[in-house]
Amino acid sequence: MVHGAMRIGLVQQANSSNAEANWLKLRRNIRQCAAAGAQLVILQELHNTLYFCQTEDAANFDLAEPIPGPSTERFSQLAKDSGIVLVTSLFERRTAGIYHNTAVVIEKNGQIAGKYRKMHIPDDPNYYEKFYFTPGDLGFQPIDTSVGKLGVLVCWDQWFPEAARLMALKGAQILIYPTAIGWEVPEKDRPRQLQLDAWVVSQRGHAIANGLPVVAVNRTGHEADPSGQTAGIQFWGNSFVAGPQGEIIYQASADEEVQRVVTVHLERIEKVRRIWPFFRDRRIDQYHQLARRFID
Amino acid sequence: MVHGAMRIGLVQQANSSNAEANWLKLRRNIRQCAAAGAQLVILQELHNTLYFCQTEDAANFDLAEPIPGPSTERFSQLAKDSGIVLVTSLFERRTAGIYHNTAVVIEKNGQIAGKYRKMHIPDDPNYYEKFYFTPGDLGFQPIDTSVGKLGVLVCWDQWFPEAARLMALKGAQILIYPTAIGWEVPEKDRPRQLQLDAWVVSQRGHAIANGLPVVAVNRTGHEADPSGQTAGIQFWGNSFVAGPQGEIIYQASADEEVQRVVTVHLERIEKVRRIWPFFRDRRIDQYHQLARRFID
Repeated sequence: MVHGAMRIGLVQQANSSNAEANWLKLRRNIRQCAAAGAQLVILQELHNTLYFCQTEDAANFDLAEPIPGPSTERFSQLAKDSGIVLVTSLFERRTAGIYHNTAVVIEKNGQIAGKYRKMHIPDDPNYYEKFYFTPGDLGFQPIDTSVGKLGVLVCWDQWFPEAARLMALKGAQILIYPTAIGWEVPEKDRPRQLQLDAWVVSQRGHAIANGLPVVAVNRTGHEADPSGQTAGIQFWGNSFVAGPQGEIIYQASADEEVQRVVTVHLERIEKVRRIWPFFRDRRIDQYHQLARRFID
Repeated sequence: MVHGAMRIGLVQQANSSNAEANWLKLRRNIRQCAAAGAQLVILQELHNTLYFCQTEDAANFDLAEPIPGPSTERFSQLAKDSGIVLVTSLFERRTAGIYHNTAVVIEKNGQIAGKYRKMHIPDDPNYYEKFYFTPGDLGFQPIDTSVGKLGVLVCWDQWFPEAARLMALKGAQILIYPTAIGWEVPEKDRPRQLQLDAWVVSQRGHAIANGLPVVAVNRTGHEADPSGQTAGIQFWGNSFVAGPQGEIIYQASADEEVQRVVTVHLERIEKVRRIWPFFRDRRIDQYHQLARRFID
């Protein structure tokens, strides 16, 4: 168990259809975070490419790659050179017909520390993820690293208190959400604010319920809908860090690209849980029905 | 299943050691809510008395009463006369040595619609509830009424996503939290704001995760610590109503006494759940370990 300060680099960026340009930008941002003292750098969801789930197109499976594979090699080298632990988010080709949305954590020595396959898969207009991603089968398992035990989840998992709780029950010291979420383009200000607020509040709620810091790293920029049916997605950025009482430590704007180092203090976890002892009082004799779809 | 608008009366008040004065104030406030169109009136936790859990004093068990009993009789008559459904919060004497913190819901015809015995019991300096309240054994069961299916929980339950989820899975149309929470008196502004924010965010999080409106009704005013060991509790009021996307519809101040009618629209529940389909995607194959204390 690691204690003390954890310096976290958040990389929020806009992507283009030029994968090499995306890579060069990621590399520059990661190096800048490392130079600014980051020990852990977190990338946004599916950071190598455009968010390709706006349409269902079987050709997009060509973007998937094995793990380990070319991306983990590249990022492993970069993590090692920079001396940081790195949370990446990749499109995993496991076999023909099984693809996952997978976060791979790379240790500062360049080795793969562990991976998490996105468990909750959304499917909404512009986010046709059920077409692409087989639901994860690795469960909610924190990943041990030299900077701490990381509860890595991905995007849609943000809305499920169960995922956060299970990571906490398995000893996670921080919840981490690589994300790609945004607004429909012709959306009014009020629903935009409401959606963004709900996204932040939901995750701050996980911090509070579990006495853990939370980091969400989201994409920014506009990406067109290849089908032309909609005006695409305006990714809402707002990457943030909250402490174990849900307090906002840092929050980015919607539009800026960010490479920002933020410090969280892991020793606060136990301080907070001593005064807010929710784990002591959980009614585990009554929770078995949480594994039901609906109780009718 | 009831649909449409639900007009909810919130009664936030300061209590004194004069039980008759508390009753008269409650009666006046309930009647005012009814006169202003409330169909459902919600009272704060343990509204009949001072919050007696600041010390552990066996004489306080004299405050407990059977259910049904004198309080349910009084409030039943009042609910019937006012034509409202009423959520009360009583200190229940079940038998010698078994006392509960029990919310009793009274139908507008004066009959008891159901009761909920507080499941999660806190124990902190100034809130010695484990001394007084046996943990509830009725589970998380919504209460059917003429205005809808009410997911009544109590205070400390606010911090447990499991409680909210189980109520939702059993068909609750709204989450309701009678509450008595406040600040230590010599507490600084920043921790005060942090605690209050966390309390609101936690419950807004339940609204979002479950696509349900949430109502919390809290006590206001200062109550001294009978032991003289502390400067007592400044109950922080801030009773609020949030919609099914966690949006704040109404929030009281910390200090005012309130009898306020707020409308929520139950038809929004399904609208919201259609666009935020979290229930569709829960990984119920993976949630059984939520019934564990810790997974070590």
